[in-house]
Amino acid sequence: MSCSIQNETSCITLDHGSGGKRMSQLIDDIFISAFSNPFLQERGDSALLGPIEGRLVMSTDSFVISPLFFQGGDIGTLAVCGTVNDICTSGAKPLYLSLGCIIEAGFPIEDLKRIATSLATTAESVGISIVTGDTKVVEKGKGDGIFINTTGIGSISNPHLDLRPSRARAGDAILLSGSLGDHGIAIMSQRNHLSFHTDIISDVSPLHGLVANILNATQNTPSLVRTMRDPTRGGLAAALNELAVASQVGMHINEENIPIKDEVYSACELLGLDPLYVANEGKLVIICAQECAENVLAAMQKHPFGRDAAIIGEVIDDTEHFVYAETIVGGSRLINWPTGELLPRIC
Amino acid sequence: MSCSIQNETSCITLDHGSGGKRMSQLIDDIFISAFSNPFLQERGDSALLGPIEGRLVMSTDSFVISPLFFQGGDIGTLAVCGTVNDICTSGAKPLYLSLGCIIEAGFPIEDLKRIATSLATTAESVGISIVTGDTKVVEKGKGDGIFINTTGIGSISNPHLDLRPSRARAGDAILLSGSLGDHGIAIMSQRNHLSFHTDIISDVSPLHGLVANILNATQNTPSLVRTMRDPTRGGLAAALNELAVASQVGMHINEENIPIKDEVYSACELLGLDPLYVANEGKLVIICAQECAENVLAAMQKHPFGRDAAIIGEVIDDTEHFVYAETIVGGSRLINWPTGELLPRIC
Repeated sequence: MSCSIQNETSCITLDHGSGGKRMSQLIDDIFISAFSNPFLQERGDSALLGPIEGRLVMSTDSFVISPLFFQGGDIGTLAVCGTVNDICTSGAKPLYLSLGCIIEAGFPIEDLKRIATSLATTAESVGISIVTGDTKVVEKGKGDGIFINTTGIGSISNPHLDLRPSRARAGDAILLSGSLGDHGIAIMSQRNHLSFHTDIISDVSPLHGLVANILNATQNTPSLVRTMRDPTRGGLAAALNELAVASQVGMHINEENIPIKDEVYSACELLGLDPLYVANEGKLVIICAQECAENVLAAMQKHPFGRDAAIIGEVIDDTEHFVYAETIVGGSRLINWPTGELLPRIC
Repeated sequence: MSCSIQNETSCITLDHGSGGKRMSQLIDDIFISAFSNPFLQERGDSALLGPIEGRLVMSTDSFVISPLFFQGGDIGTLAVCGTVNDICTSGAKPLYLSLGCIIEAGFPIEDLKRIATSLATTAESVGISIVTGDTKVVEKGKGDGIFINTTGIGSISNPHLDLRPSRARAGDAILLSGSLGDHGIAIMSQRNHLSFHTDIISDVSPLHGLVANILNATQNTPSLVRTMRDPTRGGLAAALNELAVASQVGMHINEENIPIKDEVYSACELLGLDPLYVANEGKLVIICAQECAENVLAAMQKHPFGRDAAIIGEVIDDTEHFVYAETIVGGSRLINWPTGELLPRIC
């Protein structure tokens, strides 16, 4: 996490956050060169983006993941995907990102370059530009390597689309794009104090393409797609409970239909975790009217990130807004809100 | 900085960042109640803002100031003003803010409430809404109380306005809205390891009103107002050097005309600081054509935050892009880029 040789030229120092020449050089050498675009070249304190058509959407996320580099990605990949996914699950096309870095003095500049490359590569794959940024440096011991905030804006072009979380209705179908828990288990297996090994790779991915497939397939009946969410911290359990409360309904899911990889299942057993509560960073939950569920499912399965998509349950009337799961052995259990913190700093 | 009594109900715990019930309650109790607006009530992972007219501007800033509470404001006041000022100095009307909080476990909930109140009050005074947010919690010892990111968007309605930093030209006038160094000295005087006292209060303020006065006064000749910047980290020295490089010009300022309070001057002498390098959080530098300089000055002086405004110098031809100051005793000195870090975590 810190430089092995305390070399002025290889580590971030407080001077890099001073607002002076050294900060300006750092921004040039690392960020502007990685993200090259005309907005950044202007070197203003803000980015002038021009007019934007459609309805604007805004979302923000801070990333404090530990470790910073993990199987399947790093904090840079995550910082782009996390915000892109919050934008696109609103039905918007992601357009622009801002980047705020809080770096602990002593952080290796090589690691910062690696993270900048991940940010750039991931943003490019989504077709989104990182247009404005800010860098702060805190003293050694007052941070933990690097924390990143990204804030994104996007626009919704279809005036009839409304994916707000309050739109689920009793009778709707609940769909899931793929297997649960890959991100959480990949991170857990790399934590220093845990001594298990897994080949599981984080599912961190941008969901804009998968969402576009779904919206294209349903563009003539946009109101039948009720809402979407990417189940991150707190896993599927948190996402469904949030949607149940927002829509004033209950949910009923069938565990048999929920894809979970054998290795994730085993790791969860070992760690005493329930995969429904483990974080994902590239999965999508969709609630839609039954009459378009098969259509949505087919659209998802055509996309690489939706190959294992499944209909996992339905929305029910429930004044308590509870989420129930039918277990594999046939019983029923309550999927409560997550309580306690089993997996700190998973994103 | 941390709870005196390790009481579960009075301190932030890792559980508050879990994505579960406790996080949801924290967001309800502290943020949604303080910032009450229809965007947040939706409880989506993003805010649906609707169409926005004009050219869009985006800016981001992370705040790591220490101490969190200081004479004249706190990290909440600063987090709104800092981003609002970066938006409005582009000529845009600030519209919406996002809020990302990274909180260290053990942080007192009372302090978080106090900061949320400052965020809300300052945002209200600007007429801007905090529309979306994110909360992360890191382990004790991996942060420092609270770090805040705000990202703002605004829009420019006048299609002829262009305040990009590259627009200064030789012959233009340089204006400053008021006294230098108040923020930096107020913060320094409250650092635990420094043993001087001052009555100086941070100048932290939103500049949207002052900027609006200037743009109204010059609306028929918008191109004569070249560029604006708020001189924060690195002070006036950094701001002028950045603008000189961006515009490929030099700058010549007259120290006699720069307002500096006696107490700030004394404190700078004591600490061995140059007031031109000390941070401000409510001051404005404007570069405009000479023919509208008196008009701009009068517009500034009519606003409470511009009462002490002055014309402090002019833009010159200089292939080296240097900033020179004529000193009070009559000599000339080079105002270099700030180097080294004299005032870490000033914002």
